[in-house]
Amino acid sequence: MRIGVLTAGGDCPGLNAVIRSVVHRAVTHYGDEVIGFEDGYAGLLDGRYRPLDLNAVSGILARGGTILGSSRLERDRFRAACDNAKELIEKSGFDALVPIGGEGTLTAARMLHEAGVPVVGVPKTIDNDISSTDRTFGFDTAVGVATEAMDRLKTTAESHQRVMVVEVMGRHAGWIALESGMAGGAHGICLPERPFDPADLVKMVEERFSRGKKFAVICVAEGAHPAEGTMDYDKGEIDQFGHERFQGIGTALAYELERRLGKEARPVILGHVQRGGTPTAYDRVLATRFGWHAVEAVHRGDFGRMTALRGTNVEMVPLAEAVTQLKRVPEDRMREAESVF
Amino acid sequence: MRIGVLTAGGDCPGLNAVIRSVVHRAVTHYGDEVIGFEDGYAGLLDGRYRPLDLNAVSGILARGGTILGSSRLERDRFRAACDNAKELIEKSGFDALVPIGGEGTLTAARMLHEAGVPVVGVPKTIDNDISSTDRTFGFDTAVGVATEAMDRLKTTAESHQRVMVVEVMGRHAGWIALESGMAGGAHGICLPERPFDPADLVKMVEERFSRGKKFAVICVAEGAHPAEGTMDYDKGEIDQFGHERFQGIGTALAYELERRLGKEARPVILGHVQRGGTPTAYDRVLATRFGWHAVEAVHRGDFGRMTALRGTNVEMVPLAEAVTQLKRVPEDRMREAESVF
Amino acid sequence: MRIGVLTAGGDCPGLNAVIRSVVHRAVTHYGDEVIGFEDGYAGLLDGRYRPLDLNAVSGILARGGTILGSSRLERDRFRAACDNAKELIEKSGFDALVPIGGEGTLTAARMLHEAGVPVVGVPKTIDNDISSTDRTFGFDTAVGVATEAMDRLKTTAESHQRVMVVEVMGRHAGWIALESGMAGGAHGICLPERPFDPADLVKMVEERFSRGKKFAVICVAEGAHPAEGTMDYDKGEIDQFGHERFQGIGTALAYELERRLGKEARPVILGHVQRGGTPTAYDRVLATRFGWHAVEAVHRGDFGRMTALRGTNVEMVPLAEAVTQLKRVPEDRMREAESVF
Amino acid sequence: MRIGVLTAGGDCPGLNAVIRSVVHRAVTHYGDEVIGFEDGYAGLLDGRYRPLDLNAVSGILARGGTILGSSRLERDRFRAACDNAKELIEKSGFDALVPIGGEGTLTAARMLHEAGVPVVGVPKTIDNDISSTDRTFGFDTAVGVATEAMDRLKTTAESHQRVMVVEVMGRHAGWIALESGMAGGAHGICLPERPFDPADLVKMVEERFSRGKKFAVICVAEGAHPAEGTMDYDKGEIDQFGHERFQGIGTALAYELERRLGKEARPVILGHVQRGGTPTAYDRVLATRFGWHAVEAVHRGDFGRMTALRGTNVEMVPLAEAVTQLKRVPEDRMREAESVF
Repeated sequence: MRIGVLTAGGDCPGLNAVIRSVVHRAVTHYGDEVIGFEDGYAGLLDGRYRPLDLNAVSGILARGGTILGSSRLERDRFRAACDNAKELIEKSGFDALVPIGGEGTLTAARMLHEAGVPVVGVPKTIDNDISSTDRTFGFDTAVGVATEAMDRLKTTAESHQRVMVVEVMGRHAGWIALESGMAGGAHGICLPERPFDPADLVKMVEERFSRGKKFAVICVAEGAHPAEGTMDYDKGEIDQFGHERFQGIGTALAYELERRLGKEARPVILGHVQRGGTPTAYDRVLATRFGWHAVEAVHRGDFGRMTALRGTNVEMVPLAEAVTQLKRVPEDRMREAESVF
Repeated sequence: MRIGVLTAGGDCPGLNAVIRSVVHRAVTHYGDEVIGFEDGYAGLLDGRYRPLDLNAVSGILARGGTILGSSRLERDRFRAACDNAKELIEKSGFDALVPIGGEGTLTAARMLHEAGVPVVGVPKTIDNDISSTDRTFGFDTAVGVATEAMDRLKTTAESHQRVMVVEVMGRHAGWIALESGMAGGAHGICLPERPFDPADLVKMVEERFSRGKKFAVICVAEGAHPAEGTMDYDKGEIDQFGHERFQGIGTALAYELERRLGKEARPVILGHVQRGGTPTAYDRVLATRFGWHAVEAVHRGDFGRMTALRGTNVEMVPLAEAVTQLKRVPEDRMREAESVF
Repeated sequence: MRIGVLTAGGDCPGLNAVIRSVVHRAVTHYGDEVIGFEDGYAGLLDGRYRPLDLNAVSGILARGGTILGSSRLERDRFRAACDNAKELIEKSGFDALVPIGGEGTLTAARMLHEAGVPVVGVPKTIDNDISSTDRTFGFDTAVGVATEAMDRLKTTAESHQRVMVVEVMGRHAGWIALESGMAGGAHGICLPERPFDPADLVKMVEERFSRGKKFAVICVAEGAHPAEGTMDYDKGEIDQFGHERFQGIGTALAYELERRLGKEARPVILGHVQRGGTPTAYDRVLATRFGWHAVEAVHRGDFGRMTALRGTNVEMVPLAEAVTQLKRVPEDRMREAESVF
Repeated sequence: MRIGVLTAGGDCPGLNAVIRSVVHRAVTHYGDEVIGFEDGYAGLLDGRYRPLDLNAVSGILARGGTILGSSRLERDRFRAACDNAKELIEKSGFDALVPIGGEGTLTAARMLHEAGVPVVGVPKTIDNDISSTDRTFGFDTAVGVATEAMDRLKTTAESHQRVMVVEVMGRHAGWIALESGMAGGAHGICLPERPFDPADLVKMVEERFSRGKKFAVICVAEGAHPAEGTMDYDKGEIDQFGHERFQGIGTALAYELERRLGKEARPVILGHVQRGGTPTAYDRVLATRFGWHAVEAVHRGDFGRMTALRGTNVEMVPLAEAVTQLKRVPEDRMREAESVF
């Protein structure tokens, strides 16, 4: 068989581990040919690809990023190509396609599948917000980076008797904030799933200071927002250079707390360090397993589905099911976290 | 309520995170009193304990080891104490006991429960070999340490055109070897679950060298052993000082490979670094959740059970079920790993 | 003897290692008494201190922050106290004072010395900008954190074909930017010592893209600034909440490059993670040596001086000499760095 | 010009950073051609080399090992080649040679130089035992790895009330043991420079236990040895398989302490993890500077010398001076370390 692989969407530690695993299983076990499309779906549309043999994937297991490159989906061009799926397949001559990506990528994968392309998806997101899989690779690495940052910030906060507001990734779901907040011992966590009231945070900080704990660390997902009427917050602004600027919630909240508390509060925006670099062991293992199972699915003809972690097993679930609903942090997980504030 | 906590068995990253979580949930939410028995069951038998309030557990989330100490079970004394469980409870005046430990600890917990002590167990083992829970805390940290070591050893093996045999923990189950081997990109993995034939490893190394990959890393669980008749191996020996010595399988295998291959092969025994030090974010979160759920179980009167990870949920499972059978690496997990050798 | 210790100024990994070392050497070797003033010079002025014995410093070697706390110098009150140094000494009854801190702290130490207080200083700054010592502890940790961040950002920049502008600490001297830029493989470094022209960076990025290297990472010290007339830049601004806000040079430069290049450029502000958390081995060793030599100097009566690394030796240099001039990055160090862009 | 580069001797983090730096400076600044000899001096003798341009060294800064490979020196063949140096130079057509290596490599470099080959050496050793340079790259990484291991082992030692004997690298000089022992907070350090008496260690451990500190960590250089008459120790032995085996001093000392103390003592042999993998920021910077200065020396015609760190400067020192004497740990450095046991 000839299997095409592509990576699309944002950088995510573990992408290379999936590619490597697909190539090893396909080439060594089945004697397949594997080709890698360059720059995500763009390479598929253009017929830009290169052969991937064992040498091509040597030494990439621990490397961040993706050797295949990525790009944003050009929606219109993509839809047009779907209308002529046969031609798309013939251009590069593949028998099955394994797109590795997040919600957008998998939605596109589903469209391709419905248009007649034999597709097996592999879910990827550092945000851990894809339904139908217990976890996605990349998430553990992101949480690890954020936790290490919080470990470091705590000593500074304590030495300076200061409040630190750490903004972590997570636009629509708060998994990174939840788990790095728990692991980093944050004293408050703000998630997109549950609008927060700054007054609660003020109370928490004051209560800590009155107990002699003269510092606090608050972990905020970039998609968190204040409950209506609790705080004046409007993300968008135009900076002095005429450039449209966004003041993140972390920065806004730090200023708000400083004003209300009369104590120093500093924002730290972790940003892109959370999504790059070498994956944790957990993510390397999960990514490797996903790659293996994707090839098995291809050889079983199990198309229109994606790999998913369920308990300790990797199973195949319909693409349709996976992308209809975002996986958000449920209330009971928040309750567990609040207990150790 | 008055809740007693103890940690028993070997060091395991995350123990302190459980203790902290139990105290926070019990004290803050329920207004309980928590006491910590010192040095495992020994403290319980002796009535040696200290009160654990929020201050006592401040700053321990990220710290390895256990602030309560640990010790080996004195079986006879323990059995005798079980016969008079009422007295045991009265001595320290607790309403529920939360023992945190591995198979031995949980078996003892079950005996206590059957003798009438209200017990909620929390499983702990870096080996990940306790049935009924998808994962145990400590395991992720151990795998992380072993993986980082393998990342480092690879460059040395490559520069020196050498075979490295890395022995990791895992006496009865090969989970650490399996996952660190996969994550570290080992070219061979030997597990207790499946006796190995050194001839297979020799073949793999020679095949690699013939492809121009002039090095190999082999990951061996300390409990792995050669298939009968494939290799002369006897662990025990008496050294020149009259001291009984054990030659681990890692060392024995490295010598065996060197002899058969005529190429340098070096053993590296990772040892205790795998079980100490700060836990990964994953282990801190899991440990914290286990602590929370243990307190909930205590307040529901859900005794004779232990916390367990099932998918994304923490559930309670009977202690009886948890300790009857070791969780071993199944064949299909091995197959996944072999694919990327 | 009775030796007083205090830490002042910003958080810096290694402070606790100095304190521990002072206590060990003084107590174990000389049988001294050591007291620790709380919250920097504030504790000295108020006579707030606590005894520091071996137990008090147990387990702090690897911990970030300072167990003694820190605070900003209240200049007027400090000057007034200097006028009555004798009283200051009598209040707490110490024979020698070891202040650990940066330029401000050491300048104050010099004033105390001139007022008659027996002082031995220990220099501390993550910025490495204190004259008379080859390096200061804290610097290596800061560079390590920034380098690890750059390692991670590179894969993201590459996967997304993007320019990343990483702002690191260093208001007046660019040492952190210089060394983390070199170690992290940055393609451009901007230092306070040498105003930059954005046009040079634009040229470098375009040249890289034309060679097929479709990404770039630029490392900018927070104190770097554009050469006059090369870029419209004014740090101060008032945000929509009436809060005075500062747009850092990293953010400003990223926007500028994005506009000029027509390619995505993203700022990452590393911030306080650089100054907190566990020190590297290098910083622990240097801090420990400084503590040891400070005690030796006290017992030699070698006052008005501070510890300094000179080659492989720790020597004592006059406080006066140390604080008169900032150590800035010389041109030839810049030339070395530029070579590997 | 045409500059030849080679790496010889054991793996050492930073080798690739030197190669990269040489290529960047030579190619970009001087328009030189650079060739890399394969597998150390073997490649030089055989005329096996490959061109090194900017692409060839892209992405190797942070990678351990050496892209050029290494091998042991074949002394006789090397000596013979020296006798006909002209031919050696003509075979590969280079104008200058930059060998990167340890004592053996630099001694060979000196022979080449005396035979008429224009040589600029770059010193390399994780052991830090080369005279004339304050530090060598690789050392900081080795110390960092050993320190992290000791951080981890301490929690295990404490939880189990156990003595841990950690054997680190350093056959002839104890720098790694000294600095990782200080940074890891070891309670005893044994160096090759100073024979130890196990009775002193026994006393230290007993004194700790009597103070309630019921654990100890001892850091031992592999080349450390007991003072005559203090302990029965003979490294060599023949194991049960007829294989000649070496019982390291770490293992022997752990058994000895266990016997004398009647307490558990466990050896941990860190081994090759200390010499592989990604270099620390410090080592990357030093290696990069060495490469830069080597090229400058080549262009100045400053042959027969090697790069050396002196304070904050990189200077050139005669090869002759560098290799005549091993740099060993002086007594006063030991005294500093002992103070914090």
